[in-house]
Amino acid sequence: MDPASRREQLLDIGLRLLETRPLEELSIELLADQAGISRGLLYHYFGNKQDFHLAVVRRAADEVIALTAPRDIPDPLEQLVASVGAYVDYVVDHLDGYVSLVRAAAAGNQSLRAVYDDARSALIDRIFEATDPERLADLGVHDTPAVRLLARSWGALVEDSVIAWAHDRAGLSREDLLDRLVGALVSMVVDL
Amino acid sequence: MDPASRREQLLDIGLRLLETRPLEELSIELLADQAGISRGLLYHYFGNKQDFHLAVVRRAADEVIALTAPRDIPDPLEQLVASVGAYVDYVVDHLDGYVSLVRAAAAGNQSLRAVYDDARSALIDRIFEATDPERLADLGVHDTPAVRLLARSWGALVEDSVIAWAHDRAGLSREDLLDRLVGALVSMVVDL
Repeated sequence: MDPASRREQLLDIGLRLLETRPLEELSIELLADQAGISRGLLYHYFGNKQDFHLAVVRRAADEVIALTAPRDIPDPLEQLVASVGAYVDYVVDHLDGYVSLVRAAAAGNQSLRAVYDDARSALIDRIFEATDPERLADLGVHDTPAVRLLARSWGALVEDSVIAWAHDRAGLSREDLLDRLVGALVSMVVDL
Repeated sequence: MDPASRREQLLDIGLRLLETRPLEELSIELLADQAGISRGLLYHYFGNKQDFHLAVVRRAADEVIALTAPRDIPDPLEQLVASVGAYVDYVVDHLDGYVSLVRAAAAGNQSLRAVYDDARSALIDRIFEATDPERLADLGVHDTPAVRLLARSWGALVEDSVIAWAHDRAGLSREDLLDRLVGALVSMVVDL
């Protein structure tokens, strides 16, 4: 296996370990143990614990970004429901690890927060970049700084509600959750 | 001055100090310096640095809860606009300190996070508790677990967008911000 694939594989193990413990308990020693390779080699791959954590958070972010990528659905709202749906499924499947990551990123040093903020921006800005502006205009949505501000903050609503819902459905179906979240975004940015 | 008022006064100084530095730099030594009293006395009031931080965060939360309290406005939506407006003004006036607090609470130990979560719940649950259910029903809003889940997460949207807006207005007026935020909540919970 080439070094890049080996590194990816190690990060996958790191992500899996994160499912049952907070980020601060994810050490290079633990990874070495689980991967069955020497600490020395891991330090070669990841430098130090902070860089290792940064790489794990970046890997999770890339995974979420890839899983929720636009899938050539021409209707922008259907596309958004599909993306948010993929996000919901990811959070449900990786709940403890994902909550650890979000918390660690919020708590973390500037680099860790930057990875998190970049991921959030990428997820949201993609909505505008992947959509034909004419189709957005048909919905009454125009790509302005005010609209981007509200859309990025809508990301906070999605994250918070999906985590809460994954912990306790509160009688809300997956379909209703998606529908309400997408509807909230539209209601915020329409004709602004 | 009685001990309780003195303690409140010290917490006010603590909150003010927080406006120019992150919570982790807010030490009992610094407070002693600014308040012109001995460290010993401060340790008497606050126990240790963690308890001091907890008290500062709780004080800020109480301030926000009091400032945004319902003001006998019979129309629930007008009431909500007034409450969110008071919150916006608070965040604008205390931006750096408030961001420090939110970050510290997200990053913090369980007690710190509990104060933050309790404040968020209090702010949101109050919407339901302070409003005549018939008036809510007239709007198509019913107090169910699903509605509470979405409303609490709406708190994350409000916090995130107001902080972003306080940093950069992005061409969005205060009125439009309030209108869009309240509209998002209604669109999420109506007829659910």
